[in-house]
Amino acid sequence: MTTTSTAAIAERAPYHALVRPRRGRFIDVLDQRALPHAVVNVKIADADAAAIAIRKMMVRGAPLIGAVGAYGLALALDRDASDAALAKAHAALDATRPTAVNLRWALDRIRKHVTPLAVSARADAAWVEADAIVDEDIANNHAIGTHGLALLRALARGRSGPVNVMTHCNAGALATCGFGTATSPLFLAQAEGIPLHVFVSETRPRLQGANLTAWEMSRRGIPHTLFVDGASGLLMRRGDVDVVIVGADRVARNGDVCNKIGTYTKALAARESRVPFYVAVPSPTIDWALPTGDAIPIESRSSDEVLMVLGRDEYGHTTRVALAPAGTRAVNFAFDVTPAELVTGLLTERGLVHDAPMLSAMYSEHASAHA
Amino acid sequence: MTTTSTAAIAERAPYHALVRPRRGRFIDVLDQRALPHAVVNVKIADADAAAIAIRKMMVRGAPLIGAVGAYGLALALDRDASDAALAKAHAALDATRPTAVNLRWALDRIRKHVTPLAVSARADAAWVEADAIVDEDIANNHAIGTHGLALLRALARGRSGPVNVMTHCNAGALATCGFGTATSPLFLAQAEGIPLHVFVSETRPRLQGANLTAWEMSRRGIPHTLFVDGASGLLMRRGDVDVVIVGADRVARNGDVCNKIGTYTKALAARESRVPFYVAVPSPTIDWALPTGDAIPIESRSSDEVLMVLGRDEYGHTTRVALAPAGTRAVNFAFDVTPAELVTGLLTERGLVHDAPMLSAMYSEHASAHA
Repeated sequence: MTTTSTAAIAERAPYHALVRPRRGRFIDVLDQRALPHAVVNVKIADADAAAIAIRKMMVRGAPLIGAVGAYGLALALDRDASDAALAKAHAALDATRPTAVNLRWALDRIRKHVTPLAVSARADAAWVEADAIVDEDIANNHAIGTHGLALLRALARGRSGPVNVMTHCNAGALATCGFGTATSPLFLAQAEGIPLHVFVSETRPRLQGANLTAWEMSRRGIPHTLFVDGASGLLMRRGDVDVVIVGADRVARNGDVCNKIGTYTKALAARESRVPFYVAVPSPTIDWALPTGDAIPIESRSSDEVLMVLGRDEYGHTTRVALAPAGTRAVNFAFDVTPAELVTGLLTERGLVHDAPMLSAMYSEHASAHA
Repeated sequence: MTTTSTAAIAERAPYHALVRPRRGRFIDVLDQRALPHAVVNVKIADADAAAIAIRKMMVRGAPLIGAVGAYGLALALDRDASDAALAKAHAALDATRPTAVNLRWALDRIRKHVTPLAVSARADAAWVEADAIVDEDIANNHAIGTHGLALLRALARGRSGPVNVMTHCNAGALATCGFGTATSPLFLAQAEGIPLHVFVSETRPRLQGANLTAWEMSRRGIPHTLFVDGASGLLMRRGDVDVVIVGADRVARNGDVCNKIGTYTKALAARESRVPFYVAVPSPTIDWALPTGDAIPIESRSSDEVLMVLGRDEYGHTTRVALAPAGTRAVNFAFDVTPAELVTGLLTERGLVHDAPMLSAMYSEHASAHA
C-alpha cells in the first residue's frame, strides 16, 4: 500500500488549528469561533488563557483540546512548578470541558511525567511531553487515514462517480494537530485521486459542520454539500450516502461512542439504510476505565447556543441573531452516545476494529489494566 | 367524555393564521415569515397574491395552504369564472408547492363543485365551498384533539409531573384554520388541566419550531423547551419524552407519512426508545390514490434556506445572516417519508388508527374508490 507522505498533504492545508509553540513562549491557535467569517489567530500566554480558550470553544475537538491543555499545563509550570501549582493548574484546565476524555488524558500524562522530577526540571519536561502529545496526534491522524483510505479505495473500486461520504460536526484538521480524524481518510484519498463528495451536516447548535468542515473542504478543494441535521435520514434512504465517518469525544471500552449531539440519530438512520457507519478514534479518545457509554458525562451548555446564531450580515459583518421568541427556554446537551451495536467499525491508529473484543486485543496493554 | 368547547379554547388564542374572509373582499393572513420577531398581517386580494403567499411560505402548513388555495380560486372566479380562467387559476395555485396534498385536494374540490354550474353562479359557489373547507378543518382539528386528548389523559394518569410531548416543525393553529393538528390534543389537555411540557424541535432549515411552535406555546402558556433537531435521539434515550405527536403533509394509503424534514429520524429514535409516535392527520391530508409513500414528490427548495437564517439582531431588527463559507453548496429537501411501521398511530378526525386496514375500514368511502 502506498501512502502519500504527511508533508505532502500538510502542504495542501494552508491552515493549522495550533502552531507548535516554542518553549516558554505562547501557544498560537486559530480562534475557531470566528470561522468561516474571519480568520483570527490568538496567542495564549498562560494557563488561565488556555482554560478560557478551551471553555469558550476558541479551540475545540477532542485531540486539539488535549494538546492545548497539555501546553497550558506547561505554561503554568513555567511560572510555578510546585506540587500545589501543578495541582491547581491541572484542576483548572480539567474543569473546562467534561466530555472529551483526551483533555483529562493529556493533563494526567503531563502530571504523571513531571511529578517525580525535581521542581526545577518540571517545566522543561512538560514542554517536551506536550510536544510528544502533538507528534503522536499527528502520527495517529495519519495512521487512521491509511486505515480509512483502504475502506474508501474499496468503495471507489469499479465506480464511475465519487464516493459519497457523510460526516457530522468537525473531526477535521481543525479538531486535531494533524489531518483530523474523520477527515484524514478523505485527505489521503484525495491525494490518491479517488473522487469524493462529502455530505457535511451543519451541526446545530454551534454549526461546526457549516462553519468548520465546509471551510476545510473548501480550502482543500473537496466537493461537498451542506445539509441540515434533520435530513440525514432522507439522504441515506435515497441511497445518496455510501459511508458515514465521524469522530468521537470519548469511546467506552465496549465501543459505545460519545460524539457531537446528532451523531446517534445519524447512526440509527445508517443502520436502517444499511450504510456503514465508522468512527475515527485515536486511542487517547478511548476511556479504558469506562465499561459502557452510559456513564459518560454529557456536557450541558448555555441555552444561548440554541437560541442565537452567529453569521455574516449583508454588509459582511459578523452578527449574532436571536431565533426564538424572547424568553424561550432551550436545552443544550452538547453530545450524545451511540451504542456500539450501531457502529460498523472504529478506525484507530492501529487499524480497523469491529467489536469490543477486537479493540481489547489490539490495545491489550490498556485493556488488561482495566479488566 | 367531556370536551371543552371550540369557542372556549379559541378564546385563548389571540392569533389566527387566517381570518375568514367576507365574500368578494380579501383574505387576511398572518405573514408567518415574520414570526416571532414581528406580527404582520397581509391582505390577499387576488389569486396571484394567494399563489405567491403559498409559494413564499407566508402561509404554510398543509391544511392552511389548502384553505388559502381554495379562497385564491374563489378570488380568481370573482374576476373571471370561465372554464379557461378556472383551469388557469387552478394550475397556478396547484404549482406553488408539490408535497402537501391538501392544496390539490382543496383546489380539485372547488373545481369539481363549480364546474357543472352556470358561469355566473360559480364565484358564489366557490366562496361557499371554500368556507365549508375552513369549517371542516376547524371541526377536524377539534375531533383530532379529542382523540389525542384520550392518549394524553392515559399518560397523565397516576403521574405527578407533566406529560412530556415532543413535536416537530409546526402543526399548530398556525398551520390550520383551527387549533392545529398535532397541537389540538395539547390545547384540549391544557383546558382540562392536564400538566404538559412540550419539547419543541427548532426544525431547521426554516425554524418553524423555534419561530412558530415556541411562539404558539408561549402565547398559550404551555411550558415548553426548545431543542436542536439532532438532540431528539438523546432526549428519548434519556427517558425525557413520553410521546411524540407530529403533523403530516401527505399520508399514503398504507400509512406512510410525509412530513417536515427530520420527522423520519425522530421516528427511528422513538422506536428505538419505545416512545409512542403519533401523527395527527385530518383526512384531506390522506392521498388515497397513493399506495405507499415512495411516490410522494419531495419538494426541493432553495439552498439559501440552509445557508442563511433570519433572526433578531441586538437592536431588535430582523436580520438575515449567512452561516457557511461563501459559495457553499447545500441540499434542501423540505420533507421526508416515515414508513408506516414506525408510526404508532394516526390521529384522524374519526379516531385513532393503528394500521392501514383500520384506516381503510374507517374511511371506506375513499379507500374503496382507490382499491
